[in-house]
Amino acid sequence: MTGVTATLLISCPDRKGLVAKIANFIYSNGGNIIHADQHTDFSAGLFLNRVEWQLDGFNLPRDVISPAFEAIAKPLEAKWEIHFSDTVPRLAIWVSKQDHCLLDLLWRQQAKEIPAEIPLIISNHTQLKYIADQFGIDFHHIPITKETKAEQEAKQLELLEKYQIDLIILAKYMQILTPEFVSKFSQIINIHHSFLPAFPGANPYQRAYSRGVKIIGATAHYVTADLDEGPIIEQDVVRVSHRDDVSDLIRKGKDLERLVLARAVRLHLQNRVLEYDNRTVVFA
Amino acid sequence: MTGVTATLLISCPDRKGLVAKIANFIYSNGGNIIHADQHTDFSAGLFLNRVEWQLDGFNLPRDVISPAFEAIAKPLEAKWEIHFSDTVPRLAIWVSKQDHCLLDLLWRQQAKEIPAEIPLIISNHTQLKYIADQFGIDFHHIPITKETKAEQEAKQLELLEKYQIDLIILAKYMQILTPEFVSKFSQIINIHHSFLPAFPGANPYQRAYSRGVKIIGATAHYVTADLDEGPIIEQDVVRVSHRDDVSDLIRKGKDLERLVLARAVRLHLQNRVLEYDNRTVVFA
Amino acid sequence: MTGVTATLLISCPDRKGLVAKIANFIYSNGGNIIHADQHTDFSAGLFLNRVEWQLDGFNLPRDVISPAFEAIAKPLEAKWEIHFSDTVPRLAIWVSKQDHCLLDLLWRQQAKEIPAEIPLIISNHTQLKYIADQFGIDFHHIPITKETKAEQEAKQLELLEKYQIDLIILAKYMQILTPEFVSKFSQIINIHHSFLPAFPGANPYQRAYSRGVKIIGATAHYVTADLDEGPIIEQDVVRVSHRDDVSDLIRKGKDLERLVLARAVRLHLQNRVLEYDNRTVVFA
Amino acid sequence: MTGVTATLLISCPDRKGLVAKIANFIYSNGGNIIHADQHTDFSAGLFLNRVEWQLDGFNLPRDVISPAFEAIAKPLEAKWEIHFSDTVPRLAIWVSKQDHCLLDLLWRQQAKEIPAEIPLIISNHTQLKYIADQFGIDFHHIPITKETKAEQEAKQLELLEKYQIDLIILAKYMQILTPEFVSKFSQIINIHHSFLPAFPGANPYQRAYSRGVKIIGATAHYVTADLDEGPIIEQDVVRVSHRDDVSDLIRKGKDLERLVLARAVRLHLQNRVLEYDNRTVVFA
Repeated sequence: MTGVTATLLISCPDRKGLVAKIANFIYSNGGNIIHADQHTDFSAGLFLNRVEWQLDGFNLPRDVISPAFEAIAKPLEAKWEIHFSDTVPRLAIWVSKQDHCLLDLLWRQQAKEIPAEIPLIISNHTQLKYIADQFGIDFHHIPITKETKAEQEAKQLELLEKYQIDLIILAKYMQILTPEFVSKFSQIINIHHSFLPAFPGANPYQRAYSRGVKIIGATAHYVTADLDEGPIIEQDVVRVSHRDDVSDLIRKGKDLERLVLARAVRLHLQNRVLEYDNRTVVFA
Repeated sequence: MTGVTATLLISCPDRKGLVAKIANFIYSNGGNIIHADQHTDFSAGLFLNRVEWQLDGFNLPRDVISPAFEAIAKPLEAKWEIHFSDTVPRLAIWVSKQDHCLLDLLWRQQAKEIPAEIPLIISNHTQLKYIADQFGIDFHHIPITKETKAEQEAKQLELLEKYQIDLIILAKYMQILTPEFVSKFSQIINIHHSFLPAFPGANPYQRAYSRGVKIIGATAHYVTADLDEGPIIEQDVVRVSHRDDVSDLIRKGKDLERLVLARAVRLHLQNRVLEYDNRTVVFA
Repeated sequence: MTGVTATLLISCPDRKGLVAKIANFIYSNGGNIIHADQHTDFSAGLFLNRVEWQLDGFNLPRDVISPAFEAIAKPLEAKWEIHFSDTVPRLAIWVSKQDHCLLDLLWRQQAKEIPAEIPLIISNHTQLKYIADQFGIDFHHIPITKETKAEQEAKQLELLEKYQIDLIILAKYMQILTPEFVSKFSQIINIHHSFLPAFPGANPYQRAYSRGVKIIGATAHYVTADLDEGPIIEQDVVRVSHRDDVSDLIRKGKDLERLVLARAVRLHLQNRVLEYDNRTVVFA
Repeated sequence: MTGVTATLLISCPDRKGLVAKIANFIYSNGGNIIHADQHTDFSAGLFLNRVEWQLDGFNLPRDVISPAFEAIAKPLEAKWEIHFSDTVPRLAIWVSKQDHCLLDLLWRQQAKEIPAEIPLIISNHTQLKYIADQFGIDFHHIPITKETKAEQEAKQLELLEKYQIDLIILAKYMQILTPEFVSKFSQIINIHHSFLPAFPGANPYQRAYSRGVKIIGATAHYVTADLDEGPIIEQDVVRVSHRDDVSDLIRKGKDLERLVLARAVRLHLQNRVLEYDNRTVVFA
């Protein structure tokens, strides 16, 4: 209905006239804005904005749009990116032994809920290879030990390059990435099976049970060098009771994990998430 | 922190350049936009927008802002309103015998969560007069019977005028307003004790119990001539079980009612709600 | 951990000593109760109970348990059933064109979240046959028209008998069963894509959108002769906003539908649901 | 409707025949059980039970019930308590400067949602004295400094004795009780303004904002010697977004705090909460 669109995500120090500048850039070139959402973080003095406009009727050729906008953005000291809705990002899904998040993402990709290609699955185990086969996706088994982690991460980086991957989804990948890896490839979304910052690290369901909480959660976040400390994209929770033992928490948690991860991936792929200061603005 | 602001709520047929037009109006007069949120309803072909900007540094005197903007809005066939954040709206709260929504609104007004004055309470009963006294608010007892409804509504309208009321809150007022009344005073928010459109009309909790639902709700909506059919502003729900009899539903519902009503009133008073086509856009 | 268990579900007119009678029956025969949950509906004068005990050490042979208990239950005018946890019920899943509930149930069955066999899938369309093939389940295509419904329902009943089906799951089966069918096979769970009793019947998402609700829901219920009027087992909801058009409601609703249906099926299969008076007690 | 009832809360090592023993004790003395709920914690090997029965028709005089039951409980090595529904517990509410939880509890007590007397309010500040006056409740101002804490706690204990207090509610009391105090008076419920174990201690809303969480929570728990580490009774959460600054989190959190605290107090006063092993079973 809306045709192909361009989406601008921008953040810069707040000052007068920013909305007008951006709207004028689009309007003067014949674009029709279909979504505009702005946020000002007063304590950070920051202007944050997402604008989406139809390319049909837009006078600038695609390869000129970014250079043209840079002329506006530079004096504003802005961080910005422009995406086109017909560019299909390429995802690598990383898993260990649990299948629920992987299957859920693959189903959603087939149902067109997730606008992306998924050419690559990487795992430190072989249990889920049959799913990759079923969906016709390349599967690479890269086992990890303390000793081999460095060289295996080099292999992983090679694969990311070979498959031209834009985004890694850690869909219950039970290995910690090194800071070196993250510094080389930073577009990574992880699902953590707790309501962060409660229960970071290992065995969150066991620890939630021991603490006797009445609600458990799941958290999707960007991966940074600090374990489970990256910017949170999405969280959700479910109520539990004394009748739920650890295996029930795990079962209920699996439903949470796949919903929360899928929502975060979709928001990211729709260019609705803007990171700053270890937090996110989600223009939902 | 943000000082006094002006807020524009506008809807008009969609066309190119609307965001730019509005942003330029504000920027060219020296205003700083602190909040801008836009929605396009493609099926209705409608552009809907909320823009808030700081008046500090804005070059137009207040009484000139609206005429100046009218020059822009008229050719767009727009419906629009501009509000100033230091104009304090005046509310009348209407009640019958239940105190929970009334008390909740009064507490929130004192806690400055609801930016309004509350000079008037109207009731068809006398039970809650003591609360009005406690808070130093005028209380008018206007009993209603089928026979007297017309003349009593005339009295109510007089009071609204006398007290210069901007908004009526039906905080568990157990009488139906006539279409005539609503046509004369249309700024009315009601709390209905069900998840509309389930269980409109009388005794929703009893009917929810009889139907055996597992979740109950409450709905805040603008009042129109059609009972419980007006545009919905806010809804929320709570889980119930077989252990909950009707009195438990009523008790749990009371917590919902006061939360949902308070949220709707606050959203309305912050000029975040735009009505069209018997629905609302809530720029929250 | 708990070994094989027996579960008694019982309802009868309330009177003194019922808990003691049932507990004594189990204890005097050497059983260990691991779960006992009771509810009294005072307005209906009804005692409702679920008791689960370990068969290990229980002195009565399985085929004697029911006759023995009947001696106790008869004078109480009780309705009751006893189930053994190692009896695996057989499900038929009925679908039309949408795959999300089907896939979800099949995945949960493989993950052992749903303790049942699924030997049969029936559909009035052929689109989902490939899924049945993938999981190695028999698929029967039984198209329905107004004219053929009666004879096709006869075929369906034959299949249910042939496959010894205990429970039908209508997993987005977009046909209405006739009262005749339901009177012949009454163990049927349906997922309806609205928060009943709001939006029964066709196109609930379209109607939810038109009404401008702020929350949508899904409802799993037993099927009776009255469309969407059967006893509710489970419901859940999700928040929506003006940004969600009908296709977004459908997408968000799909997640609700599969969660709500899966929970209802699991509760039923664990013998936690007791029907009476067009409502359910869920001993969760 | 149910008349005066007795409620037994009991926990003991699991063994066969426990439900029967307890039910027989009640039945053989002419009691009618109206609520029975049992839980077995297999990992702890523990049987936990709540049974409520009508005293009307029960043959044992009240002062004989406990000694009679002790004869049964002793060989089971059980921890147990029996409460009568017409014994009205006496609460002391402790506050600092914030009024929302206090007002909410007082309103619920008047609305008969909380079955208790509230003869005493203690505060380390004087701001809320006017509320105590309004409700006709004794108010004691006991300021606390590091130096005076020991002697002031002695005064507090005197007041608890003088007013025959059964339960302390810390309704936003911004002081930490010493382990000595807790060892002398252990029936204490606190509301903590975070989703524990996330953000224990001071300034949870500020820390939740800094971490960029998408959901905030509140937790009601019994107070132990370890700060914010006691058994959790109830928790709830609310969604937040980038639009919510710290003051919004505080405002939204206040609604959570009063709901969660009120639910926990009601559950406790209905004798539905059983503590063991730093966790709770809530027979709701």
